[in-house]
Amino acid sequence: MSHSLPEPSLQAVNLAHKVSLIDEHWSPKVVAEMNDYQFKVVRIEGEFIWHSHPETDEAFIVLDGTLRIDLPHGSVYVGPGELYVVPRGVEHRTAADSEARLMIIEPRGIVNTGHEGGELTAPNDLWI
Amino acid sequence: MSHSLPEPSLQAVNLAHKVSLIDEHWSPKVVAEMNDYQFKVVRIEGEFIWHSHPETDEAFIVLDGTLRIDLPHGSVYVGPGELYVVPRGVEHRTAADSEARLMIIEPRGIVNTGHEGGELTAPNDLWI
Repeated sequence: MSHSLPEPSLQAVNLAHKVSLIDEHWSPKVVAEMNDYQFKVVRIEGEFIWHSHPETDEAFIVLDGTLRIDLPHGSVYVGPGELYVVPRGVEHRTAADSEARLMIIEPRGIVNTGHEGGELTAPNDLWI
Repeated sequence: MSHSLPEPSLQAVNLAHKVSLIDEHWSPKVVAEMNDYQFKVVRIEGEFIWHSHPETDEAFIVLDGTLRIDLPHGSVYVGPGELYVVPRGVEHRTAADSEARLMIIEPRGIVNTGHEGGELTAPNDLWI
């Protein structure tokens, strides 16, 4: 079964439910697509690595917990029901002192570690 | 002050707060941008008009209440914390028996009534 195109199903996506199905941190899973963009849910805890995406902005919506986004000029705290967009090319590091559950919105094919690589690099296009 | 490009501010956007500032139904207001896409919040009650967007998918995330999306083959009910993407070209009508508060994500410049026009057509690019 291909998930490459959204189907006009009659079922909404429950984000809290979808993210609850994920069994590891820093492993984004796709839940929906809009044109060439993907909606991904992810559980995070601790600190990610500094990276940037020169080709795109990246949007974060917090479902549960508190997301800290470290930026070159300070940190942003994003709580449940809050949105933050990291502009393209801006170095950033996501972090959460205790577990946070997020949705990320970005173009299909964007790698979570930008061009840094490393062990936290997650495979793309895994649906849940 | 121009809002045409996102600034790397250190302030997240609280969606419930933003939508609470809106004083009329069916009047989407932009709260953030990601590349050439916009995040808009809107309060709705009653039924919109049937329309489609041949050029783009359109994503809805419910903040409060229940959104009903009527589609040619049935209706989808979208509750708080749920996401639904209407595929491009698919006729749809948004509705809410009692007030619902939503976020819409779609490319900048998309008109809320598609190509149908009429009195519910809202101006674009109004920020809140």
